[in-house]
Amino acid sequence: MKLSEGRKRVVIEDVSPQLDGGRHPVRRVVDNEISVKAAIFADGHDLLAARLLYRPKSERRWRSAPMYPGDNDLWQGSFLPGKIGAWVFTIQGWIDRFETWASDLKKRLGAQAAQADSGRDAIADAYDLALALRTGAIHVHQAALRARGADQKKLAETARMLNHLADENRAAYNYPLDQDVHRLMAAYPDLRYATQFDGELPVWVDRERACFSSWYELFPRSSSPLPGKHGTFADVEQQLPEIAGMGFDILYLPPIHPIGRTFRKGPNNAMDAGPDAPGSPWAIGDREAVACASVGASRSGDCGGHKSIHPELGTFADFDRLVAAANAHGLEIALDIAFQCSPDHPWVTEHPSWFVIRPDGSIQYAENPPKKYQDIYPLNFESPDWRCLWNELYSVFEFWIGHGVRVFRVDNPHTKALPFWEWCLDKLNSRYPDVIFLAEAFTRPHVMYALAKRGFTQSYTYFTWRNTKAELESYLEEITRPPVSDYFRPNFWPNTPDILHKTLQKGGRPAFMHRLILAATLSSNYGIYGPSYELAESAPARPAPGKTESEEYLDSEKYEIRQRSRNAPGTLVPLITTLNWIRRANPALHRNRSLHFHGIDNPNLLCYSKSTAGFENIILIAVNLDAFDEQAGWTNLDLEELGVSAEESFLMEDLLTGAHFTWRGRRNYVALRPGLQPAHIFRLTR
Amino acid sequence: MKLSEGRKRVVIEDVSPQLDGGRHPVRRVVDNEISVKAAIFADGHDLLAARLLYRPKSERRWRSAPMYPGDNDLWQGSFLPGKIGAWVFTIQGWIDRFETWASDLKKRLGAQAAQADSGRDAIADAYDLALALRTGAIHVHQAALRARGADQKKLAETARMLNHLADENRAAYNYPLDQDVHRLMAAYPDLRYATQFDGELPVWVDRERACFSSWYELFPRSSSPLPGKHGTFADVEQQLPEIAGMGFDILYLPPIHPIGRTFRKGPNNAMDAGPDAPGSPWAIGDREAVACASVGASRSGDCGGHKSIHPELGTFADFDRLVAAANAHGLEIALDIAFQCSPDHPWVTEHPSWFVIRPDGSIQYAENPPKKYQDIYPLNFESPDWRCLWNELYSVFEFWIGHGVRVFRVDNPHTKALPFWEWCLDKLNSRYPDVIFLAEAFTRPHVMYALAKRGFTQSYTYFTWRNTKAELESYLEEITRPPVSDYFRPNFWPNTPDILHKTLQKGGRPAFMHRLILAATLSSNYGIYGPSYELAESAPARPAPGKTESEEYLDSEKYEIRQRSRNAPGTLVPLITTLNWIRRANPALHRNRSLHFHGIDNPNLLCYSKSTAGFENIILIAVNLDAFDEQAGWTNLDLEELGVSAEESFLMEDLLTGAHFTWRGRRNYVALRPGLQPAHIFRLTR
Repeated sequence: MKLSEGRKRVVIEDVSPQLDGGRHPVRRVVDNEISVKAAIFADGHDLLAARLLYRPKSERRWRSAPMYPGDNDLWQGSFLPGKIGAWVFTIQGWIDRFETWASDLKKRLGAQAAQADSGRDAIADAYDLALALRTGAIHVHQAALRARGADQKKLAETARMLNHLADENRAAYNYPLDQDVHRLMAAYPDLRYATQFDGELPVWVDRERACFSSWYELFPRSSSPLPGKHGTFADVEQQLPEIAGMGFDILYLPPIHPIGRTFRKGPNNAMDAGPDAPGSPWAIGDREAVACASVGASRSGDCGGHKSIHPELGTFADFDRLVAAANAHGLEIALDIAFQCSPDHPWVTEHPSWFVIRPDGSIQYAENPPKKYQDIYPLNFESPDWRCLWNELYSVFEFWIGHGVRVFRVDNPHTKALPFWEWCLDKLNSRYPDVIFLAEAFTRPHVMYALAKRGFTQSYTYFTWRNTKAELESYLEEITRPPVSDYFRPNFWPNTPDILHKTLQKGGRPAFMHRLILAATLSSNYGIYGPSYELAESAPARPAPGKTESEEYLDSEKYEIRQRSRNAPGTLVPLITTLNWIRRANPALHRNRSLHFHGIDNPNLLCYSKSTAGFENIILIAVNLDAFDEQAGWTNLDLEELGVSAEESFLMEDLLTGAHFTWRGRRNYVALRPGLQPAHIFRLTR
Repeated sequence: MKLSEGRKRVVIEDVSPQLDGGRHPVRRVVDNEISVKAAIFADGHDLLAARLLYRPKSERRWRSAPMYPGDNDLWQGSFLPGKIGAWVFTIQGWIDRFETWASDLKKRLGAQAAQADSGRDAIADAYDLALALRTGAIHVHQAALRARGADQKKLAETARMLNHLADENRAAYNYPLDQDVHRLMAAYPDLRYATQFDGELPVWVDRERACFSSWYELFPRSSSPLPGKHGTFADVEQQLPEIAGMGFDILYLPPIHPIGRTFRKGPNNAMDAGPDAPGSPWAIGDREAVACASVGASRSGDCGGHKSIHPELGTFADFDRLVAAANAHGLEIALDIAFQCSPDHPWVTEHPSWFVIRPDGSIQYAENPPKKYQDIYPLNFESPDWRCLWNELYSVFEFWIGHGVRVFRVDNPHTKALPFWEWCLDKLNSRYPDVIFLAEAFTRPHVMYALAKRGFTQSYTYFTWRNTKAELESYLEEITRPPVSDYFRPNFWPNTPDILHKTLQKGGRPAFMHRLILAATLSSNYGIYGPSYELAESAPARPAPGKTESEEYLDSEKYEIRQRSRNAPGTLVPLITTLNWIRRANPALHRNRSLHFHGIDNPNLLCYSKSTAGFENIILIAVNLDAFDEQAGWTNLDLEELGVSAEESFLMEDLLTGAHFTWRGRRNYVALRPGLQPAHIFRLTR
């Protein structure tokens, strides 16, 4: 134990936020205050002081902010991270000898005054008082030695003054120090025996879009206006004004790479359709598809794989132009990174050791007996050549980052080794801290959360399968509160090319409406797969053998080109546009942390609110979860969550319709009709 | 990253029990099973295996126990610590390639059988099946290389058999392996890519008495049968049969050291009573009190201080005889260690730097302005000579351990630096793992808990100030459940020489009865200060100036000798004896972890149960918290906590009276009369 160590009497415990003892960072957003709490205490009754130390991880010098004590030895402080990337913080606490002395002196003076009043002998106390003043002079003198300039002068004068008062040996004093002295003493603390919390706790600071984003997914190959023609990046470019006009800010494209030919799937997942069917974009790789001299691939050595573009979509120049045009419309392009290979992927021949080799020397395809997916070869993360594999996978992200991509949707990350993600995302995050990764982690809770802890910015969720009031309330309460909300950012998708939930199949357009409203208002990040969603496409695929229902789409766009206009009669484009406008205009909807469920006396109605920290913006939402019948009920509002008092009337403006209502108190009446007015999205004003 | 590291796909998280990330040990009891839980998972769908590794910290070789999976990737295992002291554990998890393979093979065989039935082409599948058998042969062969003797032979044969089956290339197989092969494969796992949890988690294993003990406190100086004579250790010895007869197992003595003369306090805390008053045993030290050649002190250099005995109590020989006699009666002697000094303590002259020195060179006495405690000098834990101070304080414990003491009650530990306790108790625990330390930590919750985390075996609690049903229920729920119960062991005292709560002052003998029953049954560790308790002494001291009431005793034994017989009329000795007998005979009362509060429809009645893990012993208690009036009510029992079903009748034997009742279902009637039958302590049988 070091010489000072034994005298460090302050203990710092229960520091938050922290995740798994600092093993992983908590996630926060740039320019948003980070509140830090801790239990800070020592033996005895001395007064303590504490400060928060924080810095970008890349810098060496700590910055500091004061911490303030609350009840039960719990202290609080905060700091504002002014840039994205890795930050760290820790806490320092120490015995504040000066303030302890000052507090004692005030008690002495009060006691002395009381004694003087009662006429008791005060001589012995006068001696103690003079000693106390001299003790104070020592504290102030020592602070003067730590100070400089005018501060030093003022403190030195104060020390002399205290000694002078002691020399006078008076029977009574007023408290001799002003607030300036206290301020200066706090500015030059005695840190010799300060305790520093054992560890630097990491925080990852994202850009704003990491926690507030509206995603739109489409298949570029379906985007041609010409019937039967394979869509191109240029066709997608033409749709940008419409997509931006709906209010989305991320345009997500399924894999854009060459598609394997061997065992290629046909419409409705038909076996072995032959190389003329368009195939699934997730069966990645066709080493014969592209001229290896094409831009990008030439450098990568990955000719026809994850660093190549499917020739029918266009060229790298077309892609780069799409990225630029999207940006000009306020949209970011998100690419789908699916780490799996068709049998025709160049890695299969160049790096067979990256796959599982069967005893006959062949490569193991994906299977879940008795199902076989012979068009897909999974990667083997137990490969002896794993370092080389990891580097290549990492380089895929870096390759597309080089083409201006800053958002990635990662396919099935839960079937790739977690240590790989930790390494890969840590390296990417440290080099490109503005990049956003969305994990398609439809898997068990621990794995889903483990991916978020290892660096995924956002995650798909179980939202699709949470449809009843009880399901939605309990799931949202789990994911919008610490510890989960400290690292896991949900992204709600009411549909995806893989998932057409039976709620949508059976509820049709009215269900598409209320599920859209739920996704867009419960979660600050949400997305839809279109134009399937706008058109409320609800026909499911035929069930697999032995199953009674399917969550796949009939004539799924995964296996064929499906051209349709999002502006067909009955389209949900107007509702989507309104919702995205409401989202942008109301900061309460940019975060999830204030989400609160209110009582409403009908099991088919869900009622919840979100608000900004100072109640500048308050949104109260009521949604009819029944896609068939009108539902009505009386609310039982938690008024303190809305910042209003029980007696107060408040104005409710329905942002979906423009209608205004005056409400008062906890109980107010709501009636909602599926398909016509499935929800209220109220902005509360007073 | 090491070469194997990247292939370690298993993640181990949320391991329990652990305290502050392993910074402090959790506490358990020897020969009691320790259950360990963790989330263990990996990417994908492979089957996993895991084991618990554990050992006494002093040994190098891990022992291991299997872990078993439950819901949601949560695994469980356990081990039995066979000796007291420091233990550590960790967890290993790995992909079980063999069981994953076996599970796949079973699916293949099932699918093949289904295909054969439906007449579909099975030739391609037969090929895959043969490959699968060869893959299995590889797994089994590799295990054979890790095995020895008969196990190796059996595994090698199995591998050959699997290859032979594959050679046959049949269209159909039965699953070819028996449970023996599975058992052997589990015994020789492939641990090359096993993940070991990052850290060894500490467990402190105490002897049984650490968590089940009955304490009796008395002042030896009051123990003489001769009126007006100072009691001695020999007098205490005479009382041992009576104290042991009441069923106590720890006899706790206030400080037995020489008492300071300077500023000695008189009866009822009178100022400066002069050296002829007996003084407070907590004003420790009188360097003139003893001949320095006396046993023990001669070696310690502490002549008249913490390593000396107050001459009027006897000699070291008398003390040693008392310790031996107590042990012979099944009692342990607990000493009070109070680290503070009278102005006459030898440390004051020998080590003035261990105290706070005032600017005039004098030593700072204890004060809380305007109160002064000039008879007490606190130690200065910021002394530049702190190492020397720490060593001396440590040596005080070791000195008395040398005299056979194995239990210490530590006075005001919360006014001594926490780093000191961590160092001191760690050193003591590692050398003398059977020693029990009770912290008199009447302080703020974080400090109280911090002391427990740093090695105190038991702690005083807020029980004395928890008197209503709501107070008792919420406090007990806090301290008898993790995380608190993982390290904090409550010891309930209805009175102490310092605390006569107004419940006892006002409620008198009936209140003494119900508070005793609460202490003895709510907490497995409890104690009383006697014979004050037996006699239900309830007269409070006069309130301090400016206060309306006092929690001190009138004519407190702290400042004077008070001789009285515990067998006066109305004594509580019979009730105490019965309670201690009930405690000993009923294992349910030896722990707190099963404590459960049941509903009862009267706010003055408290109803709770404790049971052993397998419901071998079930105790249900109802207590009337009202010391004045009869209270009656209907229970609302949580029957599952009692191991009985809703339809079942059960027999309730009141262990206080011997009366029997037949109960049935949740609702049963209870009526309790203060002073006569303040509680039922039922043993439930069927």
